[in-house]
Amino acid sequence: MRRHILEILRKNAPEPVSGEELSSLLKVSRTAIWKHVQVLKNNGYVIESLPKRGYILQSSPDSISPEEVEPRLKTKWLGRNMCYEERVASTNEAAKKRASAGCEDGLLCLAEEQAAGKGRLTRGWFSPYARGIWFSVVLKPPFLPQEAPKCTLLAAVAVARAIHDYTGVRTGIKWPNDILFKGRKLVGILTEMNAEFGHINYIVIGTGINISIEKEILPADIRETAVSLAEATDKKINRAELLALILKNMEELYEQAVAVGFTAVLEEWRRWSVTIGRDVLVIAPNETYEGRALDIDEEGLLIVEREGQRVKVIAGDVSIRSTGAEGGKD
Amino acid sequence: MRRHILEILRKNAPEPVSGEELSSLLKVSRTAIWKHVQVLKNNGYVIESLPKRGYILQSSPDSISPEEVEPRLKTKWLGRNMCYEERVASTNEAAKKRASAGCEDGLLCLAEEQAAGKGRLTRGWFSPYARGIWFSVVLKPPFLPQEAPKCTLLAAVAVARAIHDYTGVRTGIKWPNDILFKGRKLVGILTEMNAEFGHINYIVIGTGINISIEKEILPADIRETAVSLAEATDKKINRAELLALILKNMEELYEQAVAVGFTAVLEEWRRWSVTIGRDVLVIAPNETYEGRALDIDEEGLLIVEREGQRVKVIAGDVSIRSTGAEGGKD
Repeated sequence: MRRHILEILRKNAPEPVSGEELSSLLKVSRTAIWKHVQVLKNNGYVIESLPKRGYILQSSPDSISPEEVEPRLKTKWLGRNMCYEERVASTNEAAKKRASAGCEDGLLCLAEEQAAGKGRLTRGWFSPYARGIWFSVVLKPPFLPQEAPKCTLLAAVAVARAIHDYTGVRTGIKWPNDILFKGRKLVGILTEMNAEFGHINYIVIGTGINISIEKEILPADIRETAVSLAEATDKKINRAELLALILKNMEELYEQAVAVGFTAVLEEWRRWSVTIGRDVLVIAPNETYEGRALDIDEEGLLIVEREGQRVKVIAGDVSIRSTGAEGGKD
Repeated sequence: MRRHILEILRKNAPEPVSGEELSSLLKVSRTAIWKHVQVLKNNGYVIESLPKRGYILQSSPDSISPEEVEPRLKTKWLGRNMCYEERVASTNEAAKKRASAGCEDGLLCLAEEQAAGKGRLTRGWFSPYARGIWFSVVLKPPFLPQEAPKCTLLAAVAVARAIHDYTGVRTGIKWPNDILFKGRKLVGILTEMNAEFGHINYIVIGTGINISIEKEILPADIRETAVSLAEATDKKINRAELLALILKNMEELYEQAVAVGFTAVLEEWRRWSVTIGRDVLVIAPNETYEGRALDIDEEGLLIVEREGQRVKVIAGDVSIRSTGAEGGKD
């Protein structure tokens, strides 16, 4: 109901909409309308009430609540069901819990803050209140378990493209799915899969995008390696809008992958890559070695030239040794 | 404490062990010993108390409680931590819950009964009280996610071998991991994996072994297709003993796979297979076709000759069309 009230006020702003009009459009009493408006005001919406003329929406809070995200969504199914909590331990945990309980395909879990945001390989992800976009989606793809890694690449492409389209900022994807700006980490993606033999039960793709974390509040260990989008652009960032754009990209790329495969995703991933063509340090589970990143294969694995041999990097971390041209503004 | 009391009584039976002796060996009061003995009696242990001579263990209940399983375990780490509940929804669910909470490698979850036992592809598994061995183990292998299916084959080999060693009954493995006796299903295995890019967080291998389910109590839809081990052998089956043997095999095969790979597992799987060399009906996610099963490849996928072409079966079900020689007694 509150989403509908906001939608009507937003459409009419800066003109007022009378309580009577809202009441008749939404088929509830004027008292009910008044009560919902009070709740919205408590949630940070500035709504002016003009006697005899009605309500005007003056401004919306900086929030990724369903009230802000839903009206901006352009997707058919991805994110059409949402769970939102201001504070969660981790949106991936919230999403996995709902996925094991049998939630629908495309569920979106959102939070303003993560108390225990998760990164790859049991690392954490610093996720302060309203300073980033912290979200996870649940997918139930018809792919085989061995194709799941490509969904991670797909997510990285969706985010890099949305950031570029929204702000003009060109980022770079470090294999497999970190998104960097001028060599520093702007976005982290953690894909978790639950699968049985030959069948994916569900995938949860969690994404953390640093939007406006001042350097001073960053934990010391990532102060020099993390970056926020606000540092890369002067554009005022509406988190809900950027999120809606990411989800739109993600849905399009995913539907295309289901229909005709991952070729286009891998192609676009290559174009965003800051790993390919660079000297890298590969930190594999059992060894560390240097080499030159040549390409990714059709499974999304990184091909590295190591002492004249082509080897594939399946797991572990890759750090980039030579500096390149990634990041910047078009 | 009760496990220790049982261990001592078991070792000495049919000779009695005095309360005083137990008290001094276990460093607790004689009253404490007496109380533990009462609990054991309530749990189905028949313990005779001879005035002035002590306690004699006459018989143990038919149970797979830690008191019964632990003293029979021959493993180093697999199953050394256990969780046991008489009734659970599903041992796989219990194991996954503990695995996500960060349990140790090798945890064993046991139950006498599953209210909602799980089979592959959202099917159920009928698991009545004490009529089977229903258990799940948590593994945290160093393998890549794409190697997880081979752990499922490994589990099937461990079970088939243990059943044979314990009862002399030769079963057959139907790809990937059903165990059949005379064409009917004796054992089901459900492997679930939680993984991220290039890294397995954990695998849960759930196994259900029908031991003594009378045909009359089987649900109608599986009455003709399921079978219990008691129908295949006259040997009195001690479930805890068979379970301990399975775990021993599983640990050995697993350690070997970690050390030198899955070659031996795949070789032994082929020897137990009732699928290879047979006409099969492949029920893949999008189509159903007939063919002849030729072999499994090094990833554990089934190779089928289909209209003169070799194709690989990655997912779905395979049913056997021609009758063969599987099942029987050596």
